[in-house]
Amino acid sequence: MQVFSGNVQALDELVVETQGQGFTDITPLLNAFIAKSGISTGILTFYAKHTSCSLTINENADPRVLVDLAAWMEAVVPQDGHGPVTANGQRHRYRHDDEGRDDMPAHIRTALTAQTMTLSVQGGRLLLGIWQAVYLWEHRAMPHRRRIACHLVGERTTERTVPASQANLLQRRNGRKLNEVVLSRHQPDAWAEDGGIETDVDLLIDRLHEIAEAPPE
Amino acid sequence: MQVFSGNVQALDELVVETQGQGFTDITPLLNAFIAKSGISTGILTFYAKHTSCSLTINENADPRVLVDLAAWMEAVVPQDGHGPVTANGQRHRYRHDDEGRDDMPAHIRTALTAQTMTLSVQGGRLLLGIWQAVYLWEHRAMPHRRRIACHLVGERTTERTVPASQANLLQRRNGRKLNEVVLSRHQPDAWAEDGGIETDVDLLIDRLHEIAEAPPE
Amino acid sequence: MQVFSGNVQALDELVVETQGQGFTDITPLLNAFIAKSGISTGILTFYAKHTSCSLTINENADPRVLVDLAAWMEAVVPQDGHGPVTANGQRHRYRHDDEGRDDMPAHIRTALTAQTMTLSVQGGRLLLGIWQAVYLWEHRAMPHRRRIACHLVGERTTERTVPASQANLLQRRNGRKLNEVVLSRHQPDAWAEDGGIETDVDLLIDRLHEIAEAPPE
Repeated sequence: MQVFSGNVQALDELVVETQGQGFTDITPLLNAFIAKSGISTGILTFYAKHTSCSLTINENADPRVLVDLAAWMEAVVPQDGHGPVTANGQRHRYRHDDEGRDDMPAHIRTALTAQTMTLSVQGGRLLLGIWQAVYLWEHRAMPHRRRIACHLVGERTTERTVPASQANLLQRRNGRKLNEVVLSRHQPDAWAEDGGIETDVDLLIDRLHEIAEAPPE
Repeated sequence: MQVFSGNVQALDELVVETQGQGFTDITPLLNAFIAKSGISTGILTFYAKHTSCSLTINENADPRVLVDLAAWMEAVVPQDGHGPVTANGQRHRYRHDDEGRDDMPAHIRTALTAQTMTLSVQGGRLLLGIWQAVYLWEHRAMPHRRRIACHLVGERTTERTVPASQANLLQRRNGRKLNEVVLSRHQPDAWAEDGGIETDVDLLIDRLHEIAEAPPE
Repeated sequence: MQVFSGNVQALDELVVETQGQGFTDITPLLNAFIAKSGISTGILTFYAKHTSCSLTINENADPRVLVDLAAWMEAVVPQDGHGPVTANGQRHRYRHDDEGRDDMPAHIRTALTAQTMTLSVQGGRLLLGIWQAVYLWEHRAMPHRRRIACHLVGERTTERTVPASQANLLQRRNGRKLNEVVLSRHQPDAWAEDGGIETDVDLLIDRLHEIAEAPPE
């Protein structure tokens, strides 16, 4: 256990331009806010100032995780209404539809997923597991300008107090590049067939898991 | 970015009397707690000390949002059991039914929605988006006395450190009154028909969106 | 309302060995971390550094609550795919299946339940309701070694600042023992029949509710 004595607060509002339904990795944005604050050890609270987008921490390696997550959500909180499809082939319509048919399901999806998050800041960055990224989850169909309230409570030091672990090194070196590689090699059409195919992406992911799960020296 | 130096904590237990399944806007109660503490800048952690009610931040303008949210929840976490309706016309019964048939679905609904929240306090009030209110979501059928643990960490100042934005002004002036107006003009029976009707409530909401989305001067 | 002046932080990583899908009560582990830190009043932020397990606060008395919760989750986030069962008797398969068919549903279940939590620490322990325990919810089929990031911000005092309430006394004396009693007397096979049976476990739980709901002297 490490103990610090801290009494500084930093606050700001970050802006994320979304491209309609989908996920934006805001980990780099949050880390930039922390770096700018000069706070090395503390807790960061953040949330969207909106009721039709939310937060989730999920896997940052295989983009198919986010595809499946969105597909599940579409099936369980469908856009055309709630409840089972009845004899006339329709669901029970949402009453709140002034702002478009995608709006009410967006409110429900927001209530089901994380609305506020607080994470540990150590060594001047978010403390996350190697496979974790923080996503802003846009639930509306159209692009939106989203405001993220950020509030950091902690202390400033002049040196990094937590040594980078093996996991952090891997994340720092390969995180975003890995995603690009996976995306470029991923063949979505192939997955439309029953059964999918085994590509070198799968092998790459297997290898990364091997490295990550190896005991530290 | 603003930076403060704060080292005060305030804690209390707030009590909310619910009226059975439904939503209670606890934003005013939380703001009263903050005002009483004298803390102007900090983070507020709060949660219900119960396992059959939860928290959600959702739209504070059109009450039909909460009606739809509750209807979706009733469809996906039904009171009569879990899983699909089988050949005998029934679902798989919940095993935990000592405290009534509404109790186990209440535990599940609690696990699916927010159980703890932490929000930023600035200028002596919760920092929320214009359309956001914090609701205590009662999942039990009968009225309950609910205890909300509140813990605020921050600093006291004698002046407001964050100028009120246009959004905050609008919220302060119109928030609760708007809800009353909307509720008084809303005709629930009309919506039972297929298609609903276009009332002046819709026009009011449209106008508010216009104001809120206008660029600050 | 009580007010304190605190400026200490304590951080550590706790390890939980899970036994495959199910719930581990981590309340004692979190309280041990708090005790070791010497911090009596503050807020504790914690989360799993993984994307296939999550957190939930739920009832600590009747173990059937957790059985029902898991059964509901299995029905709504099934392992064999998402969406309704189609004409060929199958669901839409998950695309992300490199790490086993239980992996993608684990990511979805994680996104639906609590990923980070912040709770109040008073009198050197977590402030919880009498029926509340904090569970690590393992969503993978196989046992895993899970790392829980813990970050406590508060202050040290030499005396307990919050007197133990009647509820806390009951929890401290009977919490874990009660669970053992309930588990040892619970007859899972009996519940497989339609209707279940009324055992002395039910009576015990009724009695506890009576005690807990009695007004403090």
